Amino acid sequence: MATIYKTRINILQHKLKERNIDYFIISDADSHHSEYVCDYYKIRSAFCGFTGSNGTLLVGREDAYLWTDGRYFIQAEKELKGSDIILMRMGEKSVPTIREFLAKRYETESEKMSVTIGCDGSCMMKGAMDEIRDAFAKVGKNVQFYYDSNLARDILKETGAQEKYFQFKSSKIRVLPEPLQGKCIDNNIQSIRDALIKVRADVFLSAKLDTNMYLLNIRGEDITYNPVAFSYVLVSDKNVVLFVKEEAMTDELKAYAKQHNIRLENYNCFEKKLTFYTTGKTVVTEFQSLSAKAHEVLTVNNAEVVEGDCGVALLQAIKSKKEIELIKNIYIKDSAAVCKFFYWLSRQTPGTITEYAAACKMDALRKEIPENRGLSFNTISAYGANAAMMHYETKENDCATLENGNVFLLDSGGQYDGGTTDVTRTVVIGEPTEEMKQNFTRVVRGMLALQNAVFMKGCIGMNLDILAREPMWEVYMDYKCGTGHGIGYMLNVHEGPQAIRMRGSGIAGQTEIAPGMIVSDEPGIYLEGKYGIRMENILLCEEACENHDGIFLKFVPLTYVPVDMRLINKEEMEPKEWIRLVCYQQSVYEKVSPLLSDEERRWLKKETDCQ
Amino acid sequence: MATIYKTRINILQHKLKERNIDYFIISDADSHHSEYVCDYYKIRSAFCGFTGSNGTLLVGREDAYLWTDGRYFIQAEKELKGSDIILMRMGEKSVPTIREFLAKRYETESEKMSVTIGCDGSCMMKGAMDEIRDAFAKVGKNVQFYYDSNLARDILKETGAQEKYFQFKSSKIRVLPEPLQGKCIDNNIQSIRDALIKVRADVFLSAKLDTNMYLLNIRGEDITYNPVAFSYVLVSDKNVVLFVKEEAMTDELKAYAKQHNIRLENYNCFEKKLTFYTTGKTVVTEFQSLSAKAHEVLTVNNAEVVEGDCGVALLQAIKSKKEIELIKNIYIKDSAAVCKFFYWLSRQTPGTITEYAAACKMDALRKEIPENRGLSFNTISAYGANAAMMHYETKENDCATLENGNVFLLDSGGQYDGGTTDVTRTVVIGEPTEEMKQNFTRVVRGMLALQNAVFMKGCIGMNLDILAREPMWEVYMDYKCGTGHGIGYMLNVHEGPQAIRMRGSGIAGQTEIAPGMIVSDEPGIYLEGKYGIRMENILLCEEACENHDGIFLKFVPLTYVPVDMRLINKEEMEPKEWIRLVCYQQSVYEKVSPLLSDEERRWLKKETDCQ
Repeated sequence: MATIYKTRINILQHKLKERNIDYFIISDADSHHSEYVCDYYKIRSAFCGFTGSNGTLLVGREDAYLWTDGRYFIQAEKELKGSDIILMRMGEKSVPTIREFLAKRYETESEKMSVTIGCDGSCMMKGAMDEIRDAFAKVGKNVQFYYDSNLARDILKETGAQEKYFQFKSSKIRVLPEPLQGKCIDNNIQSIRDALIKVRADVFLSAKLDTNMYLLNIRGEDITYNPVAFSYVLVSDKNVVLFVKEEAMTDELKAYAKQHNIRLENYNCFEKKLTFYTTGKTVVTEFQSLSAKAHEVLTVNNAEVVEGDCGVALLQAIKSKKEIELIKNIYIKDSAAVCKFFYWLSRQTPGTITEYAAACKMDALRKEIPENRGLSFNTISAYGANAAMMHYETKENDCATLENGNVFLLDSGGQYDGGTTDVTRTVVIGEPTEEMKQNFTRVVRGMLALQNAVFMKGCIGMNLDILAREPMWEVYMDYKCGTGHGIGYMLNVHEGPQAIRMRGSGIAGQTEIAPGMIVSDEPGIYLEGKYGIRMENILLCEEACENHDGIFLKFVPLTYVPVDMRLINKEEMEPKEWIRLVCYQQSVYEKVSPLLSDEERRWLKKETDCQ
Repeated sequence: MATIYKTRINILQHKLKERNIDYFIISDADSHHSEYVCDYYKIRSAFCGFTGSNGTLLVGREDAYLWTDGRYFIQAEKELKGSDIILMRMGEKSVPTIREFLAKRYETESEKMSVTIGCDGSCMMKGAMDEIRDAFAKVGKNVQFYYDSNLARDILKETGAQEKYFQFKSSKIRVLPEPLQGKCIDNNIQSIRDALIKVRADVFLSAKLDTNMYLLNIRGEDITYNPVAFSYVLVSDKNVVLFVKEEAMTDELKAYAKQHNIRLENYNCFEKKLTFYTTGKTVVTEFQSLSAKAHEVLTVNNAEVVEGDCGVALLQAIKSKKEIELIKNIYIKDSAAVCKFFYWLSRQTPGTITEYAAACKMDALRKEIPENRGLSFNTISAYGANAAMMHYETKENDCATLENGNVFLLDSGGQYDGGTTDVTRTVVIGEPTEEMKQNFTRVVRGMLALQNAVFMKGCIGMNLDILAREPMWEVYMDYKCGTGHGIGYMLNVHEGPQAIRMRGSGIAGQTEIAPGMIVSDEPGIYLEGKYGIRMENILLCEEACENHDGIFLKFVPLTYVPVDMRLINKEEMEPKEWIRLVCYQQSVYEKVSPLLSDEERRWLKKETDCQ
């Protein structure tokens, strides 16, 4: 670990003592609860060196901790090596959440009745703050929050951190052309207004960037991989207000806004204008994505704040017929690009291609598709032991070469005019071991079990998760992440509210899987230090049948990329499972072969031929 | 429908008008939220004729409704025929709950701001009342409750109803002898006291009859099939108080109480004494099983009432090693009795045995077991179409005969010194149709899939339910009930908090399946008017393995009764499923054959031989 991180933490700890703050939270969060954030907000890694996409640093006057999830345990260990920061492995037994940790820390300190937690209040969400408050209340303690948006960033300035932490700009916003507008803006607004009437409220406020884009049929470029612009949307019975940065307002946007009666306001004046639009009103908003500071602005101005989303999460998650048609089409093109990649890979000599070169090839193949607008996330190109790190980041100058005798995992996706894709395949380079085949076969059995599920309307992800996980559980293995996530339409590659998980709290845990929803199906086996296997198809939920027992739903795959048959152990599959695999391989050939060259097509025929 | 029911509802409606009550709830509930209640409380059927075990009657000034669940739809339709009572099929789409119905009913009546709901406050639980209040609050209405414990019963008196509705007596309580005491009373009390310290409360109050028996190692006979006595238990740092009826206090109980420092108080003075023990105290109690009236007594006397159970539900659900040993032993004896029954049935000429005679034979075989103390529920003995009614009640003078060509379903269980049992088998009389075989095979596949599940610690019933249900869902069929329930130790055949269900709210939906828990595994296919198939094994959860991925759990069956192979279609099973069946049949022979006669043993050998 570089000494600069230690220096920064030392300065921070000094400031905590000066200001009588007990713990300070640095969380890489932006003001919109975005999953991916732009560089400006990624200050956590500048304090501890951990570069994973999910991590929260908690700095006390004498101690420091980093929370991250199972995807990053191996990476975090590596990157924190040599520091005094204690790694908190989320989800492992006996590992508390941050709020549990904090509350427990002071539970028995009878002389200390009030604890002060510092954070950037414009990046700490109201919901998260409430949870901390509740945790302290349970142990009979008060908690005070010390909001300071500059404390941490000023330390970076003092210690000469990179320019990116101090620049916060928007790109120009584009308006989706009519053929790509998945839903009608006027209908979107009307459905929010209907919801407002139902809950007897005046104003709906959305801080979620992807939701803001989706509702108004606009897109931005402010966060890498996520076509969103920094924004807020406010809907009342009379007004639709869009807050965006000045530099994002194009003439096209202005004309479009005028046409649809959208008021454009300056993002930098959000708090002041929020007061103007909400004083004395009843405001519906999601506490999970509203900053504590914005919430304070509302309450100070006598707005009554009600938690809710006016149905926008489901509006966004349930794709329209038009969207589904566009998405299906794009997924076949995207699948063809991935097929082309694996054809190319099959022609390379083992030992000659690096993970980075492979990723570049994949990215280049996507770029050749006319509708492509870049990637939906940083391509994960991982060989052997690197593939055991669920969200391994391939670095040009420090990456493995694809040698004989281990597996290669490629998890990638694109942004397109017409959809957002995500797909993972694991293949063997050279000859697999028997153990690799056994494990790969289990992962494929799990993926196909979920893909072929028939289930009743009313099921949530928790009901279905075991289908994908069971082949691993049978042999006492588990993957430490969810099985599936929702995916946006020309938007974020991770989108709620539905999810396929073993456990889930709040809306994510309770959302029914409904026709029109898209979920990923990505079981895996990760053997630290050896190799990792993940297979990921994207599934569309459709109605299968309605009868006197109710409505039955099913999935259809959107992804058509072959399964590497060299890694399949047919003897370990039930006949039903084998048939599922054969049918899937056949459908891959049928869907994708028309988009391939003769050579590629011959290769695909062989790959998908199960005899 | 008999006219007496119409008369009673008319009188009630008249009284509602007199008293300005909008709706009156008659729910067959006792003061302890018992699932089964004694005759004294079963007044609902005297108002509407519906005799199922779950049903709530809602009577308005001009209208009346009956809510019941999927087990009773067919029966309720029959029994309500000719009345104006509208059947509300719980769980079906667009059918509201009672509180939703009531709130919706008044949502748009702008001139009516307050609604008055009448009920017996000592039988309406605090939790249920809160839910009604919340539902009204959501539509901006007030609700007032009119408690009257006599209103409905007085109508029965006026109209000459049976004596049973006016007699409320307890039987004598017995103390479990040491060899049958599953857990140590002192440890039970201590664990409650530890929990009280943890939540900073003074008193734990339990109204749940089975919990009261379990905590103190006593049993009663006040409710048919349930070895419980009407009681309350109150635990504070100094006191353990048991409220029971005077006639229940034997000398044995008094001596036992003295020995363990338990204060005995008169059940009839509960409310008065409750004031004495709780005034100004913080009281932990479950709102689901505490009557609204008892809650009122607490709050009127300045007790602070906190919802909670001090861990007693889990204490009860997770069986001790001693209990498990006793239970395993009893289940084999009980399984042997069921095997003897099916041997006997196999020797009877089709067309000669009625459902009732079959039930009597089964009950008699259980009685022959020395440890037997009666049944754990009324034996369901159902032939053909009757078996499609999930909780069909066999009546001596109105029941079917077991003819050739359809299935016979037997769902039965016993109370024993050493455990409580529950088992269901469906067999064919004569030759089955192909459809019967297909359906039966699906049900068996589902039962064995759950029985053979391996799953991670942390799973709840919702995660596992699909394993049993999937073979039905595959062909767009569903059973309209949960897959599994917990079972008491020498107590109620249905016991929480765990359950295997598709959906679940509150504690039942959130309880992890843990080692030491017992659950039923009872998928089914019910074809109205044709036949019903249900298979039910009872499963014990055990730890399977602990490794770096976590703790893995599995089930072992407690039930060993053969599956009717004449109804199995081997071609419809995957090899893995077939092996599960063969292994189970073999284990049945191994476990049960030593308890059978030579003739029975030869029969069992043939039944369990899968070649």
